[in-house]
Amino acid sequence: MSYTAPLTDMRFALDHIAGLPALASLPAYEAAEADVVTAVLEEAAKLAENVFAPLNRVGDEDGAKIENGVVRTSPGFPDAYRQFREGGWNSVPVSAEMGGGGLPWAVAIAVQEMLSSANMAITLCPILTQGGIEALLAHGSDMQKERYLPKLISGEWTATMNLTEPQAGSDVGALRTKAEPQDDGSYRITGTKIFISFGDHDMAENIVHLVLARLPGAPAGTKGISLFLVPKFLVNEDGSLGAQNDLRPVSLEHKMGIHGSPTCVMSFGDQGGATGWMIGPENGGMRCMFTMMNNARLAVGLQGLSVAERAWQQARAFAQERRQGRAAGGSADQASPIIDHPDVRRMLLLMKSQTEAMRALIYLNAGCIDRAHHAGSEAERAEAQALVDLLTPVSKAWCTDLGVEIASLGVQVHGGMGYVEETGAAQYYRDARIAPIYEGTNGIQALDLMTRKLPLQGGGVVQALLAQIRADCAALSGRDEAAFGDIHRHLQPAVEALDKVTRAVLQGLSGDIAGTIGGATPFLRMMGTVLGGWLLAKSAIAAREADPQGDRAFTRAKVETARFYATQVLSQAPGMAPAVLEGAESLASFDTDLLVA
Amino acid sequence: MSYTAPLTDMRFALDHIAGLPALASLPAYEAAEADVVTAVLEEAAKLAENVFAPLNRVGDEDGAKIENGVVRTSPGFPDAYRQFREGGWNSVPVSAEMGGGGLPWAVAIAVQEMLSSANMAITLCPILTQGGIEALLAHGSDMQKERYLPKLISGEWTATMNLTEPQAGSDVGALRTKAEPQDDGSYRITGTKIFISFGDHDMAENIVHLVLARLPGAPAGTKGISLFLVPKFLVNEDGSLGAQNDLRPVSLEHKMGIHGSPTCVMSFGDQGGATGWMIGPENGGMRCMFTMMNNARLAVGLQGLSVAERAWQQARAFAQERRQGRAAGGSADQASPIIDHPDVRRMLLLMKSQTEAMRALIYLNAGCIDRAHHAGSEAERAEAQALVDLLTPVSKAWCTDLGVEIASLGVQVHGGMGYVEETGAAQYYRDARIAPIYEGTNGIQALDLMTRKLPLQGGGVVQALLAQIRADCAALSGRDEAAFGDIHRHLQPAVEALDKVTRAVLQGLSGDIAGTIGGATPFLRMMGTVLGGWLLAKSAIAAREADPQGDRAFTRAKVETARFYATQVLSQAPGMAPAVLEGAESLASFDTDLLVA
Repeated sequence: MSYTAPLTDMRFALDHIAGLPALASLPAYEAAEADVVTAVLEEAAKLAENVFAPLNRVGDEDGAKIENGVVRTSPGFPDAYRQFREGGWNSVPVSAEMGGGGLPWAVAIAVQEMLSSANMAITLCPILTQGGIEALLAHGSDMQKERYLPKLISGEWTATMNLTEPQAGSDVGALRTKAEPQDDGSYRITGTKIFISFGDHDMAENIVHLVLARLPGAPAGTKGISLFLVPKFLVNEDGSLGAQNDLRPVSLEHKMGIHGSPTCVMSFGDQGGATGWMIGPENGGMRCMFTMMNNARLAVGLQGLSVAERAWQQARAFAQERRQGRAAGGSADQASPIIDHPDVRRMLLLMKSQTEAMRALIYLNAGCIDRAHHAGSEAERAEAQALVDLLTPVSKAWCTDLGVEIASLGVQVHGGMGYVEETGAAQYYRDARIAPIYEGTNGIQALDLMTRKLPLQGGGVVQALLAQIRADCAALSGRDEAAFGDIHRHLQPAVEALDKVTRAVLQGLSGDIAGTIGGATPFLRMMGTVLGGWLLAKSAIAAREADPQGDRAFTRAKVETARFYATQVLSQAPGMAPAVLEGAESLASFDTDLLVA
Repeated sequence: MSYTAPLTDMRFALDHIAGLPALASLPAYEAAEADVVTAVLEEAAKLAENVFAPLNRVGDEDGAKIENGVVRTSPGFPDAYRQFREGGWNSVPVSAEMGGGGLPWAVAIAVQEMLSSANMAITLCPILTQGGIEALLAHGSDMQKERYLPKLISGEWTATMNLTEPQAGSDVGALRTKAEPQDDGSYRITGTKIFISFGDHDMAENIVHLVLARLPGAPAGTKGISLFLVPKFLVNEDGSLGAQNDLRPVSLEHKMGIHGSPTCVMSFGDQGGATGWMIGPENGGMRCMFTMMNNARLAVGLQGLSVAERAWQQARAFAQERRQGRAAGGSADQASPIIDHPDVRRMLLLMKSQTEAMRALIYLNAGCIDRAHHAGSEAERAEAQALVDLLTPVSKAWCTDLGVEIASLGVQVHGGMGYVEETGAAQYYRDARIAPIYEGTNGIQALDLMTRKLPLQGGGVVQALLAQIRADCAALSGRDEAAFGDIHRHLQPAVEALDKVTRAVLQGLSGDIAGTIGGATPFLRMMGTVLGGWLLAKSAIAAREADPQGDRAFTRAKVETARFYATQVLSQAPGMAPAVLEGAESLASFDTDLLVA
């Protein structure tokens, strides 16, 4: 159940997929020198391996509890968080002027991958704080920034996102929490929020709740929502903590996994109203929320990758140790390690190849965020931002779906031992299952991809991406090795199929919208599958170019990983087209009466 | 969380897929008159809905416990089992001469579907008893039959299968439990067995353990294994219970799901040796074990169907109640039930269509078992048995994989509520995960299908099945409705792709075996996917023929279910061919050193 940070593959993806060397040449990221990044990753690996990972099972077995209205986290969590904070890990991607590490998001994402692999539950807390920092940086008043940002950046305080209410989950616009303006410029917040991760805990001295609520007379739906800053403890002018605010955790959810993360029902205003301050303009809450959520979506996609990496490491270790039967060529005297059995190796390679494909996608996405903020020209920034917009729903949904599937493969590799809780494989399967749900269900991501992102620039953004894939596909065909030939043979029809389906979807959106959006989820799956195959192919090319003899184990593994994925996974992409395009009639014919008949 | 037996679809599958009317015309099944079957199913539905289902969550939350060396099952379980036993449900498929119901397996499977849907954990107990009955019927001595069978058939006693040992899971031949012959014809059994479901419990007065063990000097591996009958309480000549045997449950596993089923570590012979009697010939244990396991594999495949049906019912109910957002054509005043959103409907139809496809396959498989035993001619029996051999690994593995996937879809339909334990959706996801593992992992099933079953009669068995599919495919093309055209358009290339892949696999098995078997799991998936599409198509034709106007809701639903599956699921079958056939090189290139580098 130990965890070893996959530093070699992480660094490879940073350098060759996220484009770290180019990022490091930008003025904003002058801190990101190669040896600095190396040192940062190695230090983060120690924290993940030695501090966070050993607490993963503790968090599962002895999860967060609520007692006398206060949440107590799992044994060891407050101390682990203290070490995280003192190491400055909370502020890796924040600019140096703001007191942060001044490193690219891509590097921060790599750090976060390790921490989430080591302990998904506790790492959720700083992910939420990061969302709060983003929201305040983008939309906060000077006073709000001055009073709250330094403590959030340092990690002394943490943040939460308070969106969901019992009747308002995916439909945020249905929320009812009220905010009444007061004479002093503050607001009285009253309402109940559910599914608030780390809504209360004992790891930091204050918690800054970002709460969506409605002003009196606000328009219905999402147009009438505003965002409020509601601290657990009010903050005096000198920055010291004042009175406790009128808010409290009412109860914790009894969840299937991530038991170490307290999921609170929060009550605001039991005593007349919690004191809050508006962030951004009146009724501008949705925009602020999207600022919070955008990077959070990538962070949740990353959880899919992280739990998959952990599950893969554990399955691999188990398959080396566990002996059963005799594999072809195995010793006659002793049972073979199950890793030598073809079906087990197939499962392991599905885990490995898809995990590396996810890593490439997430790191690419993070590198684009960096370029969107700090690339040299407005055109480059806009181009990068368009790619961020397109890729983020795929990173979130495809990676979290795969996280579940890979955790499930990990259980299967363990056989009966995978079903008992002692090995940890079962915990990954339970933990992983939340990620396709929160931060916008994967169905919502698929709709976002199809109806908002595909039509960007009249389809130009996705076409530019397809052009990149085609260019790398051409590079494959210039190599005479058999493995590259196999990869090319499957990547080429896959990208053409994706192109064809994309065009058909864009056409469909201008006609039978209801019919077309029924294919949103298979479309996202198809796109993720093709992007994964492309990025593994790109990785294989880069590895081969860095190692002209091609005899290093890493190079051989990269090339064969791309080949395995191409033949086993990518090869199925063209066959997904009917699932995207032909569902409309069945979905329409199946009216609700018939479905429940 | 209530459960309603899907009697209409069950009866439809019995009549039109399992061929119940023809079975009822056989002398062995004269009891299976149509109205008798109706009454049996309705009574079983009551037991499932009113007695077993309400205890499902109880079993999960207050699972089996071991105290002072004795297992105590969940509250209510002993009484529920008593009602099961008193209703005669344990003996439905046993012949009337043996004191059973004299009904076909197909009907027994339908009963078992309901009970497993209602409460998978408790229903595992009679599934194991059934295996014991089968083994004794086929291989027991007259004395063993006389002394043990009546109580097992009535359900007063239950049975277990003791195969697994710590070093012998999938590799049964590695087991070490010893059996030493005694002068009185009995054997002293010593050893430790793990993962013994219902190895001890408080629902019956005696437990008959069927234990695999080795005689002194027996050959190594599976050729040196014999089967022994080892009762918890010794049985006196007059049938009364005697002394407690030298065996005990040592501990229970802490499992991810089916908490209501006590999974025991069993110790035999702590005080010198448990007393047992050999079943069947010396070193003939594997054959006896396969007798026990064959129907058990179908029963486990059925668990995949059962948990999927329960998850689907619950997701459907939730989707009707839960309101979020506004669907196309929805009311402006009120949020729409989420069942009206295309992506939710897509998930529900994936659940419904695949559940019905599984039901058709399992019932077909069961009907073949009946024909294999009691069809009029030797040729018919042999033909049916060959189909049983071919279908059983598909029923087990494909249905249990889908059970997990459908339970996961059920969680997703619930959104955040799916991740909290209160709804029950999470329990199905946890419970379902055992079924791909036990009774032979799904990887073992895939190897069985590819290396033992495909080559039956030189490929003739699978060719005969493909011929049946082609005939039904031709029947589709004779109908001029659009839905049938869509089904035909996807079934036709799917069956041809399966044929092509089957031939290539058979050829591969005579050459690069290690490379070929790496494709066993994708091959099984492909075969299951095609069989599911075929059986839904067959169901649609049958429904339409029984309802020439085609205007009954059931008929319309059957036809559209088949169309949805054809366009969304079956359409992906041809694209699976490379995954079956092209993995060999990657699996071989990835030697273990490279995989763990």
